[in-house]
Amino acid sequence: MDLTRSPLARPFPDMPPVEGVTMRVARARYKNWDRADLTYAELAEGTTLAGVFTQNVCCSTEVEMGREQVKLGRARALIVNAGNSNAFTGYRGRDAVEQIMAQVAHHLECAPSDVLVSSTGVIGVPLPKDKAQEGVAAALHAEPCSWEDATSAIGTTDTFTKGAASAAMIGETRVVLNGIIKGSGMIAPDMATMLGYIFTDAAVEPAFLQQCLSGANARTYNCITVDSDTSTSDTVLAFATGKAGNVPLSSFDDPGADAFMAALEDVCRSLAQLVVRDGEGASKFIAVNVSGAANDDSARRVGLAIANSPLVKTAIAGGDANWGRVVMAVGKAGEPADRDKLGIAFGGTWAARDGLPVADYDEAPVAKHLEGQEIDITVELGIGEGRATVWTCDLTHGYISINADYRS
Amino acid sequence: MDLTRSPLARPFPDMPPVEGVTMRVARARYKNWDRADLTYAELAEGTTLAGVFTQNVCCSTEVEMGREQVKLGRARALIVNAGNSNAFTGYRGRDAVEQIMAQVAHHLECAPSDVLVSSTGVIGVPLPKDKAQEGVAAALHAEPCSWEDATSAIGTTDTFTKGAASAAMIGETRVVLNGIIKGSGMIAPDMATMLGYIFTDAAVEPAFLQQCLSGANARTYNCITVDSDTSTSDTVLAFATGKAGNVPLSSFDDPGADAFMAALEDVCRSLAQLVVRDGEGASKFIAVNVSGAANDDSARRVGLAIANSPLVKTAIAGGDANWGRVVMAVGKAGEPADRDKLGIAFGGTWAARDGLPVADYDEAPVAKHLEGQEIDITVELGIGEGRATVWTCDLTHGYISINADYRS
Repeated sequence: MDLTRSPLARPFPDMPPVEGVTMRVARARYKNWDRADLTYAELAEGTTLAGVFTQNVCCSTEVEMGREQVKLGRARALIVNAGNSNAFTGYRGRDAVEQIMAQVAHHLECAPSDVLVSSTGVIGVPLPKDKAQEGVAAALHAEPCSWEDATSAIGTTDTFTKGAASAAMIGETRVVLNGIIKGSGMIAPDMATMLGYIFTDAAVEPAFLQQCLSGANARTYNCITVDSDTSTSDTVLAFATGKAGNVPLSSFDDPGADAFMAALEDVCRSLAQLVVRDGEGASKFIAVNVSGAANDDSARRVGLAIANSPLVKTAIAGGDANWGRVVMAVGKAGEPADRDKLGIAFGGTWAARDGLPVADYDEAPVAKHLEGQEIDITVELGIGEGRATVWTCDLTHGYISINADYRS
Repeated sequence: MDLTRSPLARPFPDMPPVEGVTMRVARARYKNWDRADLTYAELAEGTTLAGVFTQNVCCSTEVEMGREQVKLGRARALIVNAGNSNAFTGYRGRDAVEQIMAQVAHHLECAPSDVLVSSTGVIGVPLPKDKAQEGVAAALHAEPCSWEDATSAIGTTDTFTKGAASAAMIGETRVVLNGIIKGSGMIAPDMATMLGYIFTDAAVEPAFLQQCLSGANARTYNCITVDSDTSTSDTVLAFATGKAGNVPLSSFDDPGADAFMAALEDVCRSLAQLVVRDGEGASKFIAVNVSGAANDDSARRVGLAIANSPLVKTAIAGGDANWGRVVMAVGKAGEPADRDKLGIAFGGTWAARDGLPVADYDEAPVAKHLEGQEIDITVELGIGEGRATVWTCDLTHGYISINADYRS
């Protein structure tokens, strides 16, 4: 299948080196293709680890093992396999993961549990152990590569490479954060999403790194959706090598902790939005701003009900300010709402307020706004102080073409 | 917009007269069209009433008033407006409904609360009172029409007329049940769906009629979905004129009550399936059979997660036996499941059992099955005795064309 680059794509950013992180790629040829599809990140001794994972009950071995490894809070390596998710493959899938962990651990002289493994691609086919072994062997001795090459190697149906970088001052020490991510379909994160990795040279205690990542996750990855389908492999990992030499962060009381958290959330939000920008068939990027909800969580659920509505998404695709469909989606969310207090705006122009169409509603600026690629929908529920922003894309013929033609 | 007849359409059935029911139609011209769009059902004195309605919080005035009228349990007339849903129209929408009730009540010399009103179409435009008044006046004095003409008049984006008939013996008395329904998009019922009406000449106490309708609803209307979007106007009403002269049914202990319930559920299931067969853009009718769940309700939710998955629906559209997407949908449902006990079959051929791909899985019969118009997906969860069947359609370019082009 030829995938054309998303019209909403963003260029890959300049990303600085992160001390203690070396990226390498190799060709394991998990599919019948000639491209790097195995990524190896070597991490300095002392690297701490945090992670968030899919809540899908039918998750992959990699997710199950990753959950246990995050409890230990340390990492020396990451292997990402692209083209085969190894999900729903039972004991054979687990064998393949354990083989990879042992192979890398032997090379680095570390514990197998220090080796994180992720896989993405077709469900139900055990990861071939022979290809994995040869691919890992090649990656262990490959020349270091660029961040963009590594990002390209973790991709599957992605139409562009997605990265984000940020920095923060911790005391007198400047730390950097680099994030890379893949994903474009089966996107409706539930505690985590897709495959995303954040690398920082900051020194951060694992428990606090987990606290920061979980917090950022709630306001970024858990606030995006492409198609309401939650993957079996969703994983976001954060690695902190500590090579920047700052006093290790262990709580929000530490100087620089707020700056680090802000930088981390910035990277997470950028990565999450980039996934939406590569949503299968997407032609428009949609921000759904919900305010006046009973609480923030309720606002997020109302936002997701709107963002997941096929009727809202197709209306936006057609440039139609069909606010009746937004009313419908608010009403079906199952959250506290009052029809007679509801307000809806597109691009800052109110179409309805206080439960009634606006009397002198001028559709011209709304029509103009909907012609663009960046769409804002604002919903005011009028019953409380809760607010959230959810990001999604429109639903187009492109989504159908990609997913009705893609063969398992 | 030209809508071509669904390839899954069924012919309108032969429907007998129902004593005590007279159907008439008129042209209110709620939209700029030349077709009957106002339907009037006149009901004999003594007719009992039951109803189920949308759970959408932003429901229409018609739904709010219908809920109150159902508590009274009696009806003398039904008016259905097509082309304007009158939803999200505040006090002006309510004025229009009250005017219609008063006008019909004056004609029949009954209480306004005996006149049920439904409206379907665009959201956010108050039903025009002048057109409603003229339309009702014309309908009150129109010649009686056929069941199919009445069904045609309640439709909006429907591509075929949908009806179902059944009969039952209550003691020595044969009673008939005729059902008609409209709907093809914004279909994800939550206690009720779309606009559907069932007319019977049986004598049934209103509380028992409600018990029967609610029970049938749980296994029929609440088990279908087209696009996961729940309408603001969903309504199914049942009217029992009592003209058959049977001893009135008041509980399942009464002779013939089980037969009546079976006939009612049969009509409801047929009508619900017909709505799926007219799902926007549908090319395949899909039955999702879930067994081995913790309980029946859990099975239904797993079935709906599969039936609402865009990735499953597009796979079926493409004739792809992509059971990995079914695994994903089972896992995201949030219901009790065990990945390692899961089995999935298409058209009776198991692709996966006990959490593993079937070793000698032969895709040939599955590929053949998926070429057809009637698709069966079976999911065995292996953890309990709960079961349910959910019906849906595939997701095609047709859905996008209809909904990205339809202007509000």
